[in-house]
Amino acid sequence: MTTSSPVRINATDGPGQPERTPQLESLYRGFESESLVPLWTEIGELMPAEPASKAVPHLWRWSALLPMAEQAGGLVPVGRGGERRAIALANPGLGGRPFVTPTLWAAIQYLNPCEDAPVHRHTQHAFRFVVEGEGVWTVVNGDPVAMRRGDFLPQAGWHWHGHHNRSDRPMAWIDGLDIPLQYFADATFFEYGPDGTEAVDTPKRSRAERLWGHPGLRPLTHLAPTPATPLLAYRWEYTDRALTEQLALEAEGCPATIEPGHAAVRYTNPTTGQDVLPTIRAEFHRLAQGTVTAARRETGSSVFQVFDGVGEIGVGQHNWKVERGDLFVVPSWVPFTLSSEVGLDLFRFSDAPVVERLGLLRSREEGNNA
Amino acid sequence: MTTSSPVRINATDGPGQPERTPQLESLYRGFESESLVPLWTEIGELMPAEPASKAVPHLWRWSALLPMAEQAGGLVPVGRGGERRAIALANPGLGGRPFVTPTLWAAIQYLNPCEDAPVHRHTQHAFRFVVEGEGVWTVVNGDPVAMRRGDFLPQAGWHWHGHHNRSDRPMAWIDGLDIPLQYFADATFFEYGPDGTEAVDTPKRSRAERLWGHPGLRPLTHLAPTPATPLLAYRWEYTDRALTEQLALEAEGCPATIEPGHAAVRYTNPTTGQDVLPTIRAEFHRLAQGTVTAARRETGSSVFQVFDGVGEIGVGQHNWKVERGDLFVVPSWVPFTLSSEVGLDLFRFSDAPVVERLGLLRSREEGNNA
Amino acid sequence: MTTSSPVRINATDGPGQPERTPQLESLYRGFESESLVPLWTEIGELMPAEPASKAVPHLWRWSALLPMAEQAGGLVPVGRGGERRAIALANPGLGGRPFVTPTLWAAIQYLNPCEDAPVHRHTQHAFRFVVEGEGVWTVVNGDPVAMRRGDFLPQAGWHWHGHHNRSDRPMAWIDGLDIPLQYFADATFFEYGPDGTEAVDTPKRSRAERLWGHPGLRPLTHLAPTPATPLLAYRWEYTDRALTEQLALEAEGCPATIEPGHAAVRYTNPTTGQDVLPTIRAEFHRLAQGTVTAARRETGSSVFQVFDGVGEIGVGQHNWKVERGDLFVVPSWVPFTLSSEVGLDLFRFSDAPVVERLGLLRSREEGNNA
Amino acid sequence: MTTSSPVRINATDGPGQPERTPQLESLYRGFESESLVPLWTEIGELMPAEPASKAVPHLWRWSALLPMAEQAGGLVPVGRGGERRAIALANPGLGGRPFVTPTLWAAIQYLNPCEDAPVHRHTQHAFRFVVEGEGVWTVVNGDPVAMRRGDFLPQAGWHWHGHHNRSDRPMAWIDGLDIPLQYFADATFFEYGPDGTEAVDTPKRSRAERLWGHPGLRPLTHLAPTPATPLLAYRWEYTDRALTEQLALEAEGCPATIEPGHAAVRYTNPTTGQDVLPTIRAEFHRLAQGTVTAARRETGSSVFQVFDGVGEIGVGQHNWKVERGDLFVVPSWVPFTLSSEVGLDLFRFSDAPVVERLGLLRSREEGNNA
Repeated sequence: MTTSSPVRINATDGPGQPERTPQLESLYRGFESESLVPLWTEIGELMPAEPASKAVPHLWRWSALLPMAEQAGGLVPVGRGGERRAIALANPGLGGRPFVTPTLWAAIQYLNPCEDAPVHRHTQHAFRFVVEGEGVWTVVNGDPVAMRRGDFLPQAGWHWHGHHNRSDRPMAWIDGLDIPLQYFADATFFEYGPDGTEAVDTPKRSRAERLWGHPGLRPLTHLAPTPATPLLAYRWEYTDRALTEQLALEAEGCPATIEPGHAAVRYTNPTTGQDVLPTIRAEFHRLAQGTVTAARRETGSSVFQVFDGVGEIGVGQHNWKVERGDLFVVPSWVPFTLSSEVGLDLFRFSDAPVVERLGLLRSREEGNNA
Repeated sequence: MTTSSPVRINATDGPGQPERTPQLESLYRGFESESLVPLWTEIGELMPAEPASKAVPHLWRWSALLPMAEQAGGLVPVGRGGERRAIALANPGLGGRPFVTPTLWAAIQYLNPCEDAPVHRHTQHAFRFVVEGEGVWTVVNGDPVAMRRGDFLPQAGWHWHGHHNRSDRPMAWIDGLDIPLQYFADATFFEYGPDGTEAVDTPKRSRAERLWGHPGLRPLTHLAPTPATPLLAYRWEYTDRALTEQLALEAEGCPATIEPGHAAVRYTNPTTGQDVLPTIRAEFHRLAQGTVTAARRETGSSVFQVFDGVGEIGVGQHNWKVERGDLFVVPSWVPFTLSSEVGLDLFRFSDAPVVERLGLLRSREEGNNA
Repeated sequence: MTTSSPVRINATDGPGQPERTPQLESLYRGFESESLVPLWTEIGELMPAEPASKAVPHLWRWSALLPMAEQAGGLVPVGRGGERRAIALANPGLGGRPFVTPTLWAAIQYLNPCEDAPVHRHTQHAFRFVVEGEGVWTVVNGDPVAMRRGDFLPQAGWHWHGHHNRSDRPMAWIDGLDIPLQYFADATFFEYGPDGTEAVDTPKRSRAERLWGHPGLRPLTHLAPTPATPLLAYRWEYTDRALTEQLALEAEGCPATIEPGHAAVRYTNPTTGQDVLPTIRAEFHRLAQGTVTAARRETGSSVFQVFDGVGEIGVGQHNWKVERGDLFVVPSWVPFTLSSEVGLDLFRFSDAPVVERLGLLRSREEGNNA
Repeated sequence: MTTSSPVRINATDGPGQPERTPQLESLYRGFESESLVPLWTEIGELMPAEPASKAVPHLWRWSALLPMAEQAGGLVPVGRGGERRAIALANPGLGGRPFVTPTLWAAIQYLNPCEDAPVHRHTQHAFRFVVEGEGVWTVVNGDPVAMRRGDFLPQAGWHWHGHHNRSDRPMAWIDGLDIPLQYFADATFFEYGPDGTEAVDTPKRSRAERLWGHPGLRPLTHLAPTPATPLLAYRWEYTDRALTEQLALEAEGCPATIEPGHAAVRYTNPTTGQDVLPTIRAEFHRLAQGTVTAARRETGSSVFQVFDGVGEIGVGQHNWKVERGDLFVVPSWVPFTLSSEVGLDLFRFSDAPVVERLGLLRSREEGNNA
């Protein structure tokens, strides 16, 4: 059908492979011209005994990232077309694509004083997480949401959004999106918003928080479940308190931590109790001083950012000392452990909702010798 | 089959009724002896054009209830067998049964200083709502939960629970349960707990609140949805703030109220975003001064208690002026309106989850002349 | 508030009861005048240790029922107002009400040759089951559905329906509805249809069967789940074959029966795989010859009709020999066993979806001595 | 962190791009060495205005496929290691990978007389569809399932399965799997089964069909919903009848087709009414003679195989005449139409469950000029 088939079959020897006769070579050339590929030459790659991600464990230092973002702040404008001064983490195993894992995008975004990032919307789900600084408001469907250290700010797909810096200092933060997933699924839509400046209010609390930020209380105006959370900011004050309480309860003998010294919360959609976004899970983990977690593997990929403290991270064969702002990747089915002598606070996001919704979740806790 | 059939057929005349001949009378006597009843003599009663509840609109005054509870405090002990010094509201339309509506139980419970209500558990779902006072802790599965004015305290079926008053003053509150529903469904189980005194801690915040009382945050130790809420106290501070914000947002031109001047929240289970209990819905409504709600009808029945303010209530043909503590019933499909010149805070509970789960919900907003 | 309170408090002696002093009597009179009832005098009745249904086990003989229906056929017209020549089974424990259990209605309906039952609709969910005969079509939303021995014909609430007998013989069948449940829940709506005669086609297969009666295949025109089944007839041919296959598979050593010799199918909604109706479960059970089932208890109530064969039924303290057409009731939490020396086919319906949706299901299999 | 970053940033000119100064080039080299990629150079590719799949519309002729499979039958053994004599369709837009779309795998599989394909299991979900021939049984978890023309045979992930040809003729069929999706998601597990020969029974009906193949009837032994269908064969007899009925109902004036002359069924899981497999949708479409469908676009990708008849297919800019066995691809968001003068039967499978579960579904029907 096509004369430009990109198929090239590389016959190999091995169990289950046919004898490499001229007839076989001729058949393979026929396959190529008809855009066909045998299973038997590919099965080892495509159907491994267990997941063998091309993504690799990797660490990006905040001490390297932030200066580069600052440099970009001087050289790269923010405006229509480029849209955002965002610099993506490119997993070295993924061929130079700006994908931190096969499904996830992570970038540092940087906004100078008085700068605006223009309004647009896209089907990709997104969030921001602030490891330091403040002064920027992200405006979601017209609702300005302050961004401050420790805040997690989810933003569902197809919501209009822009950012403005109303302070006299630059600000940097982390963007997480499902760009690679939607790129893979060919399901991406994107639209520019109006070019003019948006409402530039700078309230302390967004309207979303005022409607939705009360534990266990739901406005009667909004009773239907929504696929993404209507709460646009999860403030550090509450996250910190929840983790503090878990460790205090543990100290009182009440089961509240996932393992000794390891407190953790998941950010959830108050209309369902499930993940904040249909394709991205977000959590915050705290290790008390002297904590070492069990080694775990899971299908699906995660990105962690150190929020506070110092720790040692093991991912597969890698071991890293980490500190504030450092980001690292845990690919699918690679065992990982977290530990800290002084205490460690970690933000985490992952594609777990995708893995779970598709029924592909497996996890395993390794034994002591793993 | 049985000689003691209680069936008595009352033949009537009317459309679709057979001629009352001796043969017919003889047939009816045969029906009676065989425990049979024709549809045609009963259809008007059983299958009305629209719901015609036997329950009637009714008002109980706090000024009458509380003194009687106080009297009971002097005359009726609290202990094993009687279990609780609770006095139930008996809807006058329901034949003297202690049912405030066909599905719901509402009672005032009263505990003297230093009194204990013994530990038991039952499949009935329950809650407490406090219109005034404090000093009692309800202990749910060993977790002591302080009760204070404005607090809503749900308690799922089959959880062990007792109450203790550790103050030097008596305390009264409202209990709501699904006793009539479970009595009707023949699904009731009940078990006594140990007779001795329970842990008598009096913490300000329960362990449940410390684990679950953070907006949008879920402990990683508890990821499965539960049919009833794990959060054992919904504090007045948060309810009040949510309602205040709704009215403030409305004043700013942002849609946040269900109709002008009418703020409302539903208490929800943070693991699902749905009702706190599988069979009972609970809400809090606030009318700003000068508010009159539209007249509404719904299938299913509700009980309201005035928490603060003064208002005028219309339920069917009844009109009442109400004030703090007063309780009133809205039976199924009876239109009702709420209004207040000075402002009115109302707690509400209903059997709406039952009606919704069984697919029986209908509602209608009446026109201006209704 | 009311001068006609029907409350009458009967003070008793016993554990947890207050001393019967004049002051107490005076307090009780006060309760009565204010429509109040203490918990402590009622708790034993309302909150028993386990369900104690007022409904009793009972058996109605087909040999008694059918002649009475035939007599009614001669004396009672079918028409607007009376609507149906249906004679309901009244559980002797339920005070003469036409309720076979607290939640369920069961009736024998009888239609003479060339008679029509007029079109109406109601929120009550209904089904028909045919133990013998044929010749009637039930017309559901304009779709005529033939009724024949062994067929189960569900009909969701609020669907227009009438019946016509186009044969030269009378026909009787069983109607099951959730009338008592909806009467209790005050959620009943009812509407007359047009008085004239409906379409009187008599096709072998309804349009519903032609669209939905193909195993595992769904028309692309109907992709949303519906609360009740769109399939209006479950034909005996398929039920019989499914049961036959289960026993054959069991004989081949493949697990396919719920216990040895006991085959059973549940009628399900093909859009969800769940119960055919939101409030009624329907099943068909077959005991191979020489089968004795384990004794079971469940919350919720059931009605069985013998379709074929002869058997012995134990329900609580009752033991009955049963044969074709006999109907019996199993109230909530009463243990029951089924057995047969020659083989027994049983149709069953119950309120299990109500019990399950409200989270009230419990069941227990009794030991050998139960 | 890594010295071998594969990142290569290609600066471009255009709206929103920074001026290409030496400083910028230096910054880009810094990005590359730190495995970073800017959004602004990639946004057009990653976030297009609407989906722009790399997969292309493509047609494979059965007349070319089958002879190649036959040739492979003579040259390529079937056994452990290669596992299957399956030849995959490689979409020419996807770089030579054996992926018919970004998420789906389609292959022709070929088995000689008396050949066995060895037992294995994998997390990938799979199905077989038979366009011609018979004689092979696929054995799923020990249950032999006959394969015949028109049959659709789904097989859930992680079920043991092998195939055996017990006839004296070779047989070819189509395999569909979600290999590319699970490869992308890094969620693949694979395990060899025992090497010896399996049970080689050749029953007409599988045990699965005997348990599950009765419309609307569910065995009481299997009441929990399962993520994939327990019914292992959807026989042509039923599919054909369902489509025939839809067209007959349409002719009688009853709405039963998705557009005039276009009948269609979806294969569903009887335990849920939803798709047969968590990641793959399967449907069968029939065009009556003289039918032209509306042009449609959808997110997500589909593969069609012509089962019978002759038709004309339009996919994007392509127009093909198709006949029995031909396979073609519709990539995401490419408009397509189907038409036939003589009648056309089409099997279709797609990744729609993935798209729907992730909330990424959009569809649009084009106007006449589209």
